[in-house]
Amino acid sequence: MDTVGKVISCKAAVAWEPKKGLSLETIEVAPPKAGEVRIKVREGVTYFMVMNVTRDHVIPLYTPQCYDCKFCRNPKTNLCQRIRATQGKGVMPDGTKRFTCKGKELFSFMGCSTFSEYTVCAEISVAKVDPVAPLDKVCLLGCGISTGYGAALNTAKVERGSICAVWGLGAVGLAVIMGCKAAGASQIYGIDINPAKFEVARQFGATDFINPKDYPDKTIQEVVMSMTDGGFDYTFECIGSIHTMRAALECCHKGWGESVIIGVAAAGQEISTRPFQLVTGRVWRGSAFGGWKSRDAVPKLVDEYMNKKLKVDEFVTFTLPLNMINEAFEYMHTGKSIRSVIVF
Amino acid sequence: MDTVGKVISCKAAVAWEPKKGLSLETIEVAPPKAGEVRIKVREGVTYFMVMNVTRDHVIPLYTPQCYDCKFCRNPKTNLCQRIRATQGKGVMPDGTKRFTCKGKELFSFMGCSTFSEYTVCAEISVAKVDPVAPLDKVCLLGCGISTGYGAALNTAKVERGSICAVWGLGAVGLAVIMGCKAAGASQIYGIDINPAKFEVARQFGATDFINPKDYPDKTIQEVVMSMTDGGFDYTFECIGSIHTMRAALECCHKGWGESVIIGVAAAGQEISTRPFQLVTGRVWRGSAFGGWKSRDAVPKLVDEYMNKKLKVDEFVTFTLPLNMINEAFEYMHTGKSIRSVIVF
Repeated sequence: MDTVGKVISCKAAVAWEPKKGLSLETIEVAPPKAGEVRIKVREGVTYFMVMNVTRDHVIPLYTPQCYDCKFCRNPKTNLCQRIRATQGKGVMPDGTKRFTCKGKELFSFMGCSTFSEYTVCAEISVAKVDPVAPLDKVCLLGCGISTGYGAALNTAKVERGSICAVWGLGAVGLAVIMGCKAAGASQIYGIDINPAKFEVARQFGATDFINPKDYPDKTIQEVVMSMTDGGFDYTFECIGSIHTMRAALECCHKGWGESVIIGVAAAGQEISTRPFQLVTGRVWRGSAFGGWKSRDAVPKLVDEYMNKKLKVDEFVTFTLPLNMINEAFEYMHTGKSIRSVIVF
Repeated sequence: MDTVGKVISCKAAVAWEPKKGLSLETIEVAPPKAGEVRIKVREGVTYFMVMNVTRDHVIPLYTPQCYDCKFCRNPKTNLCQRIRATQGKGVMPDGTKRFTCKGKELFSFMGCSTFSEYTVCAEISVAKVDPVAPLDKVCLLGCGISTGYGAALNTAKVERGSICAVWGLGAVGLAVIMGCKAAGASQIYGIDINPAKFEVARQFGATDFINPKDYPDKTIQEVVMSMTDGGFDYTFECIGSIHTMRAALECCHKGWGESVIIGVAAAGQEISTRPFQLVTGRVWRGSAFGGWKSRDAVPKLVDEYMNKKLKVDEFVTFTLPLNMINEAFEYMHTGKSIRSVIVF
């Protein structure tokens, strides 16, 4: 490896300021320090990308797994906290940065920074996967698919015969539907204000659909109670709106319904409900990365995909070069794509 | 039984209007209709009372168990819905009333109406208990003690070695502490703004205490995070304040902490938090009557008391005649009593 210990110059998409498009730039990637790995990125998606390190094929993880912290030792959670503080600040575990561009140091993004031909991650943030798996597909197991699928199986623990409902039919919502189906749910409602999404949701396993806009004079709670025998056993919020988070809880069946928040709300926003909703037996939960302990689970999810137990190809609407990354985000936000994979 | 089929005149404490004291009156109690039982009340508490029917000793239940509705058939809930609508309106299952006073029909209270020498309940609202058990003690298993004890064991399912915290050290809070101790919790924090309650809480099993008033410049969340390694495994709100409900959730440990709302908030009030609290692994639940399926559980709880596995005597501060019922409520509200038992 003639690059060992040396700075590598390469192309990357850089966010210079919030809420602006990414700029294609030439950046310098410093060599990894102790406990880090430098990775050549082979493909990517609008969120996360697959890479290889010294011939291993890996998927970088925004939720690491150190196997040693209080969280990794507790079977109830996947939220390894080992590098949380530094990752949250956009720096490496030692507090320094690895990317520069035009003389400026760049922050890392969520411990991965994968919109670059090369990146540097903490070694606890990398899962080694089957080298035969197609990287331009299994890259998606680094985020949305695993998140939704695990929210149904690990967080809600959906049971055979359950009646489930999913708010938001993007990639995460579709993955939740796939998880509910795998768990044996008898009915899976897809709820979205864009009915163009219903047909693809049906292919993932949804059986019933509600477009709240079809009921301008009713709350979704009223609609659900009129359509069902008391509400849903499990609900999932995959949008990030505090209003649909409340609706998803209140559409749960009295006595046992459980609602899982997966979507990320805007900073500072708060969810609310009457406490009576909980006292009468509903449960309010959340899920991050589907509850999967990341380095243990992602290689197994790749294997499930290779064994055709898990859909992944069906989430890839477009495969695009890095210089179309802004278009890739636009396609996702407007619903034109489920996900786009970026190839290098 | 020379009263069979006849109206009985007897003494009762009647609430003529909200937020006023109860009036001692002579009332007429109609005979029971199909599916109902008329009960002679032997003693009572400021909430619920023990009675006998045709020589059986029974405890009336504000949460019935019909063994037949969708809720009774589901092992996840204790909230029998068979007579919910009529009970909520203060009438018998057939929509009529059984009490009159001064020519006016009186409503029933929560399916029990036990501040009366005689009452009429739905038969699904009555648990038959060991006739040897002292009625002036086990009457308390009809509400607060069972509620708190079950919230720890059934709703939270506290595990050995857990660190628990209880907001509000009244009867329900003390019963939660007893449940946490029975489950093997390693630390049990009692939290109350009245430090006079700490010593009795210690006798029930509390190991640590926090008086939020000792920290005028900090939120309880800040105090708890400074005193513990990341917060509590299980928390219980036994006050009925939306502010302490939020605090109890946010004092839970990231990744796995679960908070159980037991207190009843004022009508129309709402709980709120940032959804991030749930997405990072906290769970928000509620509990009613401790999750116990009432007619199955109450006789067993009476047996646990008789076998000295469950404290009950320790909850009875005063034993008072019916004409002191307003004082009994006052003693409870001011913290002068845990519970008072009314004897007839």
